[in-house]
Amino acid sequence: MGGSFFNRILVPSSSADPCSRACRVALLICCCLSVLVESSLGSKTRHFKWEVEYMYWSPDCVEGVVLGINGQFPGPTIRARAGDIVNVELKNKLTTEGVVIHWHGIRQQGTPWADGTASISQCVINPGETFVYRFKVERAGTYFYHGHYGMQRSAGLYGSLIVDVAKGEKEPFHYDGEFDILLSDWWHESVHEQELGLSSKPFRWIGEPQTLLMNGRGQYNCSLAAHYSNSSSSQCMFRGNEQCAPQILRVIPNKIYRLRVTSSTSLASLNLQISNHKMVLVEADGNYLQPFAVDDMDIYSGESYSVLFTTDQNPSNNYWVSVSVRGRKPNTTQALTMLNYHNTTSASKPPPSPPPVAPLWNNYTHSKLFTKKVLALMGNPNPPPTTHHRRIILLNTQNYIDGYTKWAINNISLVLPATPYLGSIKYNLNNAFDHKTPPANFPSNYDVMKQAQNPNSTYGSGVYMLSFNTTVDIILQNANALAVNTSEIHPWHLHGHDFWVLGYGEGKFSNENDEKSFNLKNPPYRNTAVVFPFGWTALRFVANNPGVWAFHCHIEPHLHMGMGVVFAEGVRRLGKIPNEVLTCGLTGKMFLNNKND
Amino acid sequence: MGGSFFNRILVPSSSADPCSRACRVALLICCCLSVLVESSLGSKTRHFKWEVEYMYWSPDCVEGVVLGINGQFPGPTIRARAGDIVNVELKNKLTTEGVVIHWHGIRQQGTPWADGTASISQCVINPGETFVYRFKVERAGTYFYHGHYGMQRSAGLYGSLIVDVAKGEKEPFHYDGEFDILLSDWWHESVHEQELGLSSKPFRWIGEPQTLLMNGRGQYNCSLAAHYSNSSSSQCMFRGNEQCAPQILRVIPNKIYRLRVTSSTSLASLNLQISNHKMVLVEADGNYLQPFAVDDMDIYSGESYSVLFTTDQNPSNNYWVSVSVRGRKPNTTQALTMLNYHNTTSASKPPPSPPPVAPLWNNYTHSKLFTKKVLALMGNPNPPPTTHHRRIILLNTQNYIDGYTKWAINNISLVLPATPYLGSIKYNLNNAFDHKTPPANFPSNYDVMKQAQNPNSTYGSGVYMLSFNTTVDIILQNANALAVNTSEIHPWHLHGHDFWVLGYGEGKFSNENDEKSFNLKNPPYRNTAVVFPFGWTALRFVANNPGVWAFHCHIEPHLHMGMGVVFAEGVRRLGKIPNEVLTCGLTGKMFLNNKND
Repeated sequence: MGGSFFNRILVPSSSADPCSRACRVALLICCCLSVLVESSLGSKTRHFKWEVEYMYWSPDCVEGVVLGINGQFPGPTIRARAGDIVNVELKNKLTTEGVVIHWHGIRQQGTPWADGTASISQCVINPGETFVYRFKVERAGTYFYHGHYGMQRSAGLYGSLIVDVAKGEKEPFHYDGEFDILLSDWWHESVHEQELGLSSKPFRWIGEPQTLLMNGRGQYNCSLAAHYSNSSSSQCMFRGNEQCAPQILRVIPNKIYRLRVTSSTSLASLNLQISNHKMVLVEADGNYLQPFAVDDMDIYSGESYSVLFTTDQNPSNNYWVSVSVRGRKPNTTQALTMLNYHNTTSASKPPPSPPPVAPLWNNYTHSKLFTKKVLALMGNPNPPPTTHHRRIILLNTQNYIDGYTKWAINNISLVLPATPYLGSIKYNLNNAFDHKTPPANFPSNYDVMKQAQNPNSTYGSGVYMLSFNTTVDIILQNANALAVNTSEIHPWHLHGHDFWVLGYGEGKFSNENDEKSFNLKNPPYRNTAVVFPFGWTALRFVANNPGVWAFHCHIEPHLHMGMGVVFAEGVRRLGKIPNEVLTCGLTGKMFLNNKND
Repeated sequence: MGGSFFNRILVPSSSADPCSRACRVALLICCCLSVLVESSLGSKTRHFKWEVEYMYWSPDCVEGVVLGINGQFPGPTIRARAGDIVNVELKNKLTTEGVVIHWHGIRQQGTPWADGTASISQCVINPGETFVYRFKVERAGTYFYHGHYGMQRSAGLYGSLIVDVAKGEKEPFHYDGEFDILLSDWWHESVHEQELGLSSKPFRWIGEPQTLLMNGRGQYNCSLAAHYSNSSSSQCMFRGNEQCAPQILRVIPNKIYRLRVTSSTSLASLNLQISNHKMVLVEADGNYLQPFAVDDMDIYSGESYSVLFTTDQNPSNNYWVSVSVRGRKPNTTQALTMLNYHNTTSASKPPPSPPPVAPLWNNYTHSKLFTKKVLALMGNPNPPPTTHHRRIILLNTQNYIDGYTKWAINNISLVLPATPYLGSIKYNLNNAFDHKTPPANFPSNYDVMKQAQNPNSTYGSGVYMLSFNTTVDIILQNANALAVNTSEIHPWHLHGHDFWVLGYGEGKFSNENDEKSFNLKNPPYRNTAVVFPFGWTALRFVANNPGVWAFHCHIEPHLHMGMGVVFAEGVRRLGKIPNEVLTCGLTGKMFLNNKND
C-alpha cells in the first residue's frame, strides 16, 4: 500500500489491574478535568468538569456540527470503580438551548434527581448555568451517558461510562486487555431539522443514517474496503489524525480481550462481527451473563455488552471489525475497523478477505436466536417467584393525531410537561400533568397484525403510579404500524431499575398461555430489552427505587414522537429534593410564591 | 404575459379612521387571537395569544426553516392606539430553546421587565412555558418586535407593531391609505450554524444574505425583472399564493399614501426607492420629522420610517418598489415589488423600464446627506439645553481575544451573564456580573484610522450605572477594523429610551471642536442611529426610565460577537419586579434559598 490507510491505534487496557491502568490512561487524557478524592472506605469521588457546546466536527469525513464536551466527540470517558461517587460539574455553553445528561444504566438509588431526564427528574440546565450531577456507581459494568432533551443525543451528546469492580473484587472471567467501543449513527441533516421534520404535517422522516460510527468515527465518502468491492467508493487514505480515522484494535497473539460494546444509536439496530474470531458474551447492561459464543452479535440502541475474544488466529493477518444495520432495510454502509496483531503485522496491511457479510437485515429468526441466548449467570438476582402484583400491558402503535404522525402507548402519545414530574408529584401540583392514570391494557379485540386504526389517539402526560416495593410485570406488545405489513423493532429502556426479561413471543400476548412460558430461572437482568416486530416482550421489575422514571423506546425519533411512558414510585419517601432541579415550570413558581421550603 | 407574475395584493388601510379600518383587518386575520377590552378611559387592552415554533417556510422560494408565530412568518402585526395596553401571552413551543421577544421602540416606562432582552430584563421563557408581556404603547408610531436571544431574530422571529394616534388625536400630516413594509435579510444557512461559525476559531463569517425580504417575501432563484436584465436568472411566475410571492402595493391615482418601513435586517443596510415617485419622510422611530423629500431613502437595521408618496404618475403603468444593499459590497440581488394603479392597470403588467439603480454601495456621501436631513419636527421634545452631566465615549473596534474574532467597546467584548441584570442589580447579587465599571473613554493616542491593535481586549459583563434623571451624552466612535482600510457601518439601538442625535462627524471625535457643531435646535429624537465608517455619532438622552437597558449595534452577528454595552438607572426605584422574570441564574437560586420575597 502507498500510504497507510488506517493507523490510529486503540491501545487495550490490561485487566490485571484494570482500574490502575485504565484510570491512568483516562487521567492522562483529561488530566485537569478529573480529580480523585479517596475516602477512608476505599471508594473515591471522581470529579469531572465539563462544558457542553456545539463544535464543527467531521465524524464521517464530512464536516458537520456535533454536540461536544470539552472539545471532544464523543464526550470524555468516565471510568470509576464500583462504590465510587461520580461528580460531574456540567456547564451549558450553548447559546439558546437547555441541556441535561442521563447516566444510562446507573440506577440512581437515593439520587433520582441526578437521572438527567428533562421534564422528569429535573429542569434543564439553561445556557450559561452549571449543574452538578453527583451519584454513586454501585455496580461494575459497561454503561454510557447521553443527552436526554429534545434529540440532543442524536446530535452527538454521548460518551462511555465504565465501572470496574471494587478493589479486591474480581470479575467472574479472565481477560488480558480491554477495548471500549461506543456505537452510534450519524445524519448530515442537523438535529434541529430532524426534530422539525418529525413534528411537521406532513410528516418528514429522518431516513436512514448516512454513516455508522465506532467511537464517533466513520467514513461516508470513502471505504476502508474499497479495493474489495465493485462499488464506486474510493479507498480511504488516512494520516491518522483525522477525526474520522478509524481506531484500530491493537492486539498480541494468544491473549483474551474484553470488548465493551455500547449502542447509543438514534435509530439503527446493529450487528457486530470480528472476522475469524468467536465472541463470548459475558455481560449485558452491567449484569453478568451465562457465557455463550457467537460469530456475530446483535446490539440495540440502549444496550451494552461485554464480549471476550481470543487472539488465536494467524497473527500475520489483520481482521475486520464490522458493524451493520439490522431490522431496517439497510441504506447505510457497514462500519469498519481492524483487529491488528501488532507485533507481527503492519497496521496498514489490509485484511486478506472482504469484510464479513452481515446476516440479512430482516432475518429476525437469527436475531431472536441471539437474543434468547442472553441469559443471566447463576448467582444473579432472581425475579421474585411470587405472582406479580401488577401487570401493565403496553400496546405500541403508530398513530395519526390531528394529522400528525406519532407513536402511542395504549393510544396515548407522550408529551412531556414543562414541570419535572419529580417535583410536581412530590409537591402535589395538580395542574402540572394529566392526573388520569393511563390505561394498563388495550381493547381485547385489537388486531395487532392489521394496520393501526386508532382514531381516538390523544396526547398525554399521565403517570403510572406504582405502589412502593411492589413487583410489576410489563408486557410490551408490538403491532402493525400505519403501513401495511409493517412492524418495527423497539428497544425499550427503563430508568432507575433493571428488569428481568421473562420472555419474548409472537403475535398478541395471551395471559393464559404465554405466561407459562416465562423464564423465572435465569432471565437476563438488564435495563433495555427489544420488542420484535409483531411480537411481545415480558418484563418484571420491583418498584423499589423512590423517584420518577422514564420507560421508553430508545430510538430517539420514536421517543420524540411520543413513544414512552412514565412510572413513579415512593416519591413521598424521598427526603428533600435539591431545589435547584425544580426551578422551572410550576415548581419554580411554587418557590417564588414561597408556599413551600 | 402568459401567467401573472405577481398578483398578491397588499391592500392599503385608510387613514380617515386609521384604526377602525386597520384594526378590523387585523381582527379579521387573527380573529380568535386578538381580543379587545375597552377601558372606561377609551384606551384598550389588546390581547394576543402567540405560540412560537420553527416551521418549514420558503421566504425566498427556497425552502428553509423559520421561527414563526402562530404559523405565520413574519409574525402577526400588532396594531394598537396610543395609550393602549398590549398583552401578549407568549408560549414557547420550541423543543430545547428558550425564547424572548423585544418590543423595539417601546420604552417600557414602568415595565422594564417586559423589554424582552434575555439576560438583561428577564430569564428566557423555557420550552413549554408561557410568559405574559404586558406593556403600554404610549406613543403613536411605527415599531416592530423581534427575538432578542442568541440570533433568533435572524431566524425570522419578528413582526410589525403599529401604534395609531389616540382617539380624537390627529397626525401632523394627511394621508389616504397606508402600507406597512417590514424589511429583512435571509440566509440559507441555519441560524444555529451561523452562531457556531461566528463563535469558532478560526472565525467563519456568515457572508452576505442570500435574499432581501419585504414582509418576509423575496426571490432567490428567479427575478421579477429578469426580462430586463442580461442575467441568467429566470422570470418569476407566481400563482399568488406562494410564500415568496411579492405583495403588490395597490393604489388609486392622485392619493397620498403612508408607507411605514421598518428594518429588522440581521446585517444589511438598505436603500429603498419607488420608481418615478418622490418620497416625503415624516416619521422616524415613532417621532415626527421635519418633512423632506427624496428619490431614495436609506434605512439601517433597527430603524423605522414613515414616508408619504403621491400617486401622481401615469396610472396606466406599474412602478418598481426596490430595496438594495448599502455599505457592504453587495452580493445580494435587490428586492422588488410593484406599485400598481389598480383601477387602470393590470397587476400582471411589468413596469415599462428596468428597476431603479441604487446609489453605489460605498457612496457614503449620499448616505450622510440623507441621514443629516433627518431632523425633528418643531414641537418635538428638545434635548436639555444644559451641559451634559456625563459623557461616555464608546470606541467600536474589532478584536482578537484568545484568537477568537470579536467586537469590543473600549476593549471589552460583551458577554451576557446567566442572571438578568434587572434582578442582580435590584437584589445586589455581587457575583452575577463584573462589578468593575467599564471604561468611559479610550486612550487618547488610539489611532482610529489604523488597523485595530488591541492585545488587551477582554470579555466583560460590566454595567454603566447611570445616576437617575441625569443627562448622558454618548459618543459612538468608529475605527478601523482588523483588515486594513476597513471600517463598517454600525446602527446602534438604545432600549428604554429615545435619544437625540446631536451630530455626526468624521475621524476621531474632538471634545474641543466637535461639540460646537452639535445640533441642539432640532436634532432627531429616535432609538437607533448609524455610525458611519471612520466616523463618530453623538447622542444625548435622559436616564429617567428605571431599569436595565441594552445599547448595542443592531447588526445581529455584531451583537453576537460582543458589540454592545449595558446601562442601568434607578433600579432601586422600581417597585416589585415580577418574580417570574427572575427564576433563572442567581436570582432563581436566591428565591430557592428563600432569602428574599
